[in-house]
Amino acid sequence: MWFMRQAGRYLPEYRAVREKAGSFLDLCYNPELAAEVTIQPLRRYDLDAAILFADILVVPHAMGLPLKFAEGEGPVLGTVRSMQELDRLKPVVESYEVRQVCRTVALTRSQLAPHLALIGFCGAPWTVASYMVGGGSSDRVMAKVAAYQRQPWFCALIDRLVQESIDYLSAQADAGAQAVQIFDSWAGDLVASELEEFVLKPLAAIVAGVKSRHPGLPVIVFARGIGMGQRKAAAISGANAIGVETEYDLTELPKDVVVQGNLDPVALLAGAEVAATEVRRICAAVDPQRHIFNLGHGIRLGTDPSAVGAVVDAVRRCDG
Amino acid sequence: MWFMRQAGRYLPEYRAVREKAGSFLDLCYNPELAAEVTIQPLRRYDLDAAILFADILVVPHAMGLPLKFAEGEGPVLGTVRSMQELDRLKPVVESYEVRQVCRTVALTRSQLAPHLALIGFCGAPWTVASYMVGGGSSDRVMAKVAAYQRQPWFCALIDRLVQESIDYLSAQADAGAQAVQIFDSWAGDLVASELEEFVLKPLAAIVAGVKSRHPGLPVIVFARGIGMGQRKAAAISGANAIGVETEYDLTELPKDVVVQGNLDPVALLAGAEVAATEVRRICAAVDPQRHIFNLGHGIRLGTDPSAVGAVVDAVRRCDG
Repeated sequence: MWFMRQAGRYLPEYRAVREKAGSFLDLCYNPELAAEVTIQPLRRYDLDAAILFADILVVPHAMGLPLKFAEGEGPVLGTVRSMQELDRLKPVVESYEVRQVCRTVALTRSQLAPHLALIGFCGAPWTVASYMVGGGSSDRVMAKVAAYQRQPWFCALIDRLVQESIDYLSAQADAGAQAVQIFDSWAGDLVASELEEFVLKPLAAIVAGVKSRHPGLPVIVFARGIGMGQRKAAAISGANAIGVETEYDLTELPKDVVVQGNLDPVALLAGAEVAATEVRRICAAVDPQRHIFNLGHGIRLGTDPSAVGAVVDAVRRCDG
Repeated sequence: MWFMRQAGRYLPEYRAVREKAGSFLDLCYNPELAAEVTIQPLRRYDLDAAILFADILVVPHAMGLPLKFAEGEGPVLGTVRSMQELDRLKPVVESYEVRQVCRTVALTRSQLAPHLALIGFCGAPWTVASYMVGGGSSDRVMAKVAAYQRQPWFCALIDRLVQESIDYLSAQADAGAQAVQIFDSWAGDLVASELEEFVLKPLAAIVAGVKSRHPGLPVIVFARGIGMGQRKAAAISGANAIGVETEYDLTELPKDVVVQGNLDPVALLAGAEVAATEVRRICAAVDPQRHIFNLGHGIRLGTDPSAVGAVVDAVRRCDG
């Protein structure tokens, strides 16, 4: 059991560190403080894993695109919309940004109790590319048009992100990450051949690439919102576990798939009783031996930390 | 074949009428101009049906909530968050707003060629309630929390919207609408028992209520984004046809269901060739006798009107 965005603004101790760090990116690239916020939720809750504190836009930033997070607004990222702009980007592995993230991984691993796992992560090519094409905007229309048109520069951008993601995840594993998750937050944008081409194939390529360098490393693929496509993701991605969104009916996946998810983060806003009811519904739907308890999306700002505790307790009661 | 938002800002002739009318709501409540924009796309394209030009927020507006559409922003709607606020609302049928919409229906029917169908519509209770709770915001978190908590005022609001929707759709049918669609744009927010309680049951109740007064009237239910829930919607809603979102795999519905959808409106932005490829993929996946060709979402601002024409041609070629 772990929760997406378990380290975050809903926790007062996170907000205190964040204030000390400066900007959100300052925190991401400060190994001591990033390790601290990564570990914070494990002090409060009986979770099984820590998830590295970083951002999916570290990769384009490390490739050389300017990046800013304006307070209260979304990210502003330099754009890539041609082969020339793509060719200018640098490999991530030698970058300051990735070095700092890997220091965070190493420091967290050294400070974390040995029985707790440390999970690394990256964004998936489709999701990261959609931000690179859209300049950080969450509007994926330009990326989607480029995908439909099979623009050569867009296909090359996806291929490049596959390679950079393999390098980035491998570096995290070298630094001490014991599992990795690939977040494809906007995978649900695509269907049919575009889903295959720009979501499922790149995910499978990253899983294969990471496993060729780190054969035993568990990889979790979270292609959010692809609904009926999750069966295909389970069949072809090569992942050890499949993350599913809140809207996914857990009973639809074949019984031999390890599934991660899918409690609604909004249920935590509705109070401990509602959240515990949802926990029981989810636990009844899956084989506990093949289930990583998690949310279907990140913990929301404004969530009462005690509601998270109530969920952890409810999950442990289901296990017992 | 018809298209959601086929009358709209992508058409220059629409923008000309809109300018003449004043605000968006002025246009909705001006029967002559609203009938004109309803008919406009039928002059350009070989479509089979016109869809009434109105808005899903007509119902809360007619119930007495203040409503404004700020230019370039979303709607601002008075809120309902308690039983007292709900009790203050009026029945829609005697309202100015609904009378004007029904005049639009009658005028459109009288001006439309006899072989073309006129489709009326309303918003579904969950979607309309989410705007009423959120004050017009597209953030449905407050409504979702109320739903999870089974707040008595929220359940009563849903029940009330079921009744008002039946009255509203019946009035449209009396005025000349030959089919009606119920738009549940945010149905995909809910899963499990909340989906049953606040989406599927209210939709079924409206279908049953409308059919008890207008037994022959075809009713289309479009619960957008419910994915695997569409099979259940088809089974229990009592609708004549099930509208499905772009992300839905059309082959997943049982063969005896009439399905409407699900071309991606973004494919139209990617050009005529991409759009025609998508049309062929969709037509190959369904029995043309049980398929109403449509989009999975409304036509987007910025769509080239000639791309819509290319889609119509491609569909007609599939039919032939």
